[in-house]
Amino acid sequence: MATENFQAPKGTRDFYPDEMAVRRYIEDIWRRVSIRHGFQEVDGPTFESLDLYKVKSGVEIVSQLFSFTDRGQRDLALRPEFTPTLARMVAQRAAGLPRPIKWFSIPRCYRAEQPQKGRLREFMQWNVDYIGEASDRAERECLALCADALLEFGLTPDDFRIGWNHRAWLTHVLVGTFMPPERISNAFYILDRLHKYDRAGREALYREQGCSDKEKAYFEFIAGTSNQSLSELTDLLSAFMLDRHSRLGEPPPPDLCHLKIDSTVREFEKRLKDTNLAAMCSFDLSIVRGLAYYTGFVFEISDRQGENRAIAGGGRYDNLIEMFGGPSLGAVGFGMGDVVLEILLRRRDKIPKAILDNHQNPDVFIVNALDDAVHAERLIFELRRSQWDSTRQRIIRPGLHAECSYRSTRNIGKLLQEAAASGAKLAVILARAELQRGVAKLKNLADRSERTVSMETLIEEIHAALDPA
Amino acid sequence: MATENFQAPKGTRDFYPDEMAVRRYIEDIWRRVSIRHGFQEVDGPTFESLDLYKVKSGVEIVSQLFSFTDRGQRDLALRPEFTPTLARMVAQRAAGLPRPIKWFSIPRCYRAEQPQKGRLREFMQWNVDYIGEASDRAERECLALCADALLEFGLTPDDFRIGWNHRAWLTHVLVGTFMPPERISNAFYILDRLHKYDRAGREALYREQGCSDKEKAYFEFIAGTSNQSLSELTDLLSAFMLDRHSRLGEPPPPDLCHLKIDSTVREFEKRLKDTNLAAMCSFDLSIVRGLAYYTGFVFEISDRQGENRAIAGGGRYDNLIEMFGGPSLGAVGFGMGDVVLEILLRRRDKIPKAILDNHQNPDVFIVNALDDAVHAERLIFELRRSQWDSTRQRIIRPGLHAECSYRSTRNIGKLLQEAAASGAKLAVILARAELQRGVAKLKNLADRSERTVSMETLIEEIHAALDPA
Repeated sequence: MATENFQAPKGTRDFYPDEMAVRRYIEDIWRRVSIRHGFQEVDGPTFESLDLYKVKSGVEIVSQLFSFTDRGQRDLALRPEFTPTLARMVAQRAAGLPRPIKWFSIPRCYRAEQPQKGRLREFMQWNVDYIGEASDRAERECLALCADALLEFGLTPDDFRIGWNHRAWLTHVLVGTFMPPERISNAFYILDRLHKYDRAGREALYREQGCSDKEKAYFEFIAGTSNQSLSELTDLLSAFMLDRHSRLGEPPPPDLCHLKIDSTVREFEKRLKDTNLAAMCSFDLSIVRGLAYYTGFVFEISDRQGENRAIAGGGRYDNLIEMFGGPSLGAVGFGMGDVVLEILLRRRDKIPKAILDNHQNPDVFIVNALDDAVHAERLIFELRRSQWDSTRQRIIRPGLHAECSYRSTRNIGKLLQEAAASGAKLAVILARAELQRGVAKLKNLADRSERTVSMETLIEEIHAALDPA
Repeated sequence: MATENFQAPKGTRDFYPDEMAVRRYIEDIWRRVSIRHGFQEVDGPTFESLDLYKVKSGVEIVSQLFSFTDRGQRDLALRPEFTPTLARMVAQRAAGLPRPIKWFSIPRCYRAEQPQKGRLREFMQWNVDYIGEASDRAERECLALCADALLEFGLTPDDFRIGWNHRAWLTHVLVGTFMPPERISNAFYILDRLHKYDRAGREALYREQGCSDKEKAYFEFIAGTSNQSLSELTDLLSAFMLDRHSRLGEPPPPDLCHLKIDSTVREFEKRLKDTNLAAMCSFDLSIVRGLAYYTGFVFEISDRQGENRAIAGGGRYDNLIEMFGGPSLGAVGFGMGDVVLEILLRRRDKIPKAILDNHQNPDVFIVNALDDAVHAERLIFELRRSQWDSTRQRIIRPGLHAECSYRSTRNIGKLLQEAAASGAKLAVILARAELQRGVAKLKNLADRSERTVSMETLIEEIHAALDPA
């Protein structure tokens, strides 16, 4: 076993320093933008009881989970998503939490699926949830945060598109025209998958879901509307319905879609225009999101060049907290994974060079021309240490990033080259003749100026030179 | 199932915003201090093949792991520690990595043990590894980093103690006096556990490990030496050995311990004194660290008041990378978990009030006295957004943390009270009369000064007021 060649498990990633720098860059932006939008960070366990995942997703979820038993024979599973944990945490303390509850998290999640491009078995997912707000302020705040994060990554409205829809309205249209209410969840399931399949795949899906010809016609029509504006769509939808019904010899359906577009959907569209979000958003009747628990507004962010999966998606889920034993609380949320996002950012060349280079410029580089490392080491350790004020219980001067060569050379010229290449702002030159006089040379590597400083005040002088204010 | 009362699994934690703030505080200090000591962050998968964990810990480890199989019937396990992943990652790319390899990571780790105070089934662990350095510079850099982090948390040398030992020297003493080499790993196993047991527990351990009376006497002696200085210890050890041997009628052992103290251990102690580390460190013959893979220097950081488990521990492991199929590379590393550390920081009242309060002061608070939220919402979204320079591909003005009341009141006095209580620096007052004239009031909540600003330049004025430079 000793010389076996181990690899990272299928569908997982090793984060060497360069990959880790990109991951931290992504996570830091998610965190920073969340906080300035007034959200607080939370997290939960990496695994939960297996039953928790059945509550909202049914038993079918089990085959997609990494599950195991602990020593007490409890069935546990690695989290495939954060929402069940969130719902559990809110339900447990609902009475004591100030409203609205605005939480974000950046959990690592796990899915026992076949890995494919943009979809791994282990990934980071930014989760944002806005709980306890019935008005569509919650929808707009979530949309604004999600869009703001993408802009913060340097993406523009030319790169991504936010498509949104309203499940209640789509339900109203379908049920109001012909569909029995018990078929609605099948309809959402089908509509969420249509765009992934070709003609033959769609037909197989229709057969599997037992679709009538009328249903198929409606689904094909809806799936083809994604690039229509809301006003165009109204006319198209009316014409389609009238045509279908006249061809089938049925009376025309009541004009339900116009009625509801004028209230819920038009009102929402108007409020988007009032903010600065409208340019990025478009109504899209074909977006329903697959998850069964969305109750109203849903949205999905996609790459405008269409090469990737959805970058983010979410919606309103007003029944979820109650399903987990909590009170009835309106809620809106969304998720964004790191895998698709990173592919997009790399393809668009949006990851800053400094992150890709992953080089931390030291503040100060010690050029050690002495025979031993004793003085250099003591100086480095002292420079790296923060200065604490024990009375006020806080750091009054943060430690510096100090480095020294790992090579054995004592050649000042070569070491100064290494110091300059490191990107350090200052170099300290420790040499025997100076040290015997109790001094060292302090060199500014930017303007190449150099001066002699007493060893006793050296640390103060370095701090002063780095932070002249 | 819908109203079942779910709980976090045994031995895991929910991180509500207040707990998450403390976790991030701890992780941020680990990260910040690591970087200024010249280490780079890495991470690996949360689970690895089960076999990977047997390489260094043997099959006994399996019962302490959460293990499971994937759909391809591969045996996997949640990581109980990061070291096997680290060794695998280094072994895989050893030829291409610049030396020395100075890496840190902050992985979440998992142990299927009975939870107890300071020891949970899921925890964060700061891991630091210095690979490819044969000299004891690696030991000192690791010790300096570990100590620096504790100082950064506001702990002082009165709070913690770094005990260190050298396994090669202890081996030399034991083998040089009486112990067969094949008993050494038992000796380390026993010495690592003695301080956790009472008299009866020790006797049971000795029986279980098949100890002779002589071994027991040595172990009891060594376990009692933890508060001795190195010079006291030398005399004590000689006296003990002479006494034991004369009482057993054996010839006195060769004076091996003096010999080696003068080289490896004394030299290391001298170098600690040359730096600023000596005041925190003390030689401790009783510290051996349980893990079998340490080859030389070992250390452990403990609470001086002795209430907790070890805060951190580590040592040199020169054979590890080779065990995982890589080249022979000298290495030193240590780990520090979040659970014991947080208990200690809370007990010593060292977590800053701002972290415990977990309140993010907004930059600006919008006081909305208008009938609707349209203007306030647009303003907030615009303030929160960063300004990008698309030519230079970077943010030239970061977005602000902007807030607005979630209450329905339009009373300016009440809303200004809320703004002041939020800790915001500025308040913008949106009122009908002013808005009709195209202006708003901008109030400095610190000095209570107020001025009227055109809506057209409002955002610029807010940025200017917050960042006068």
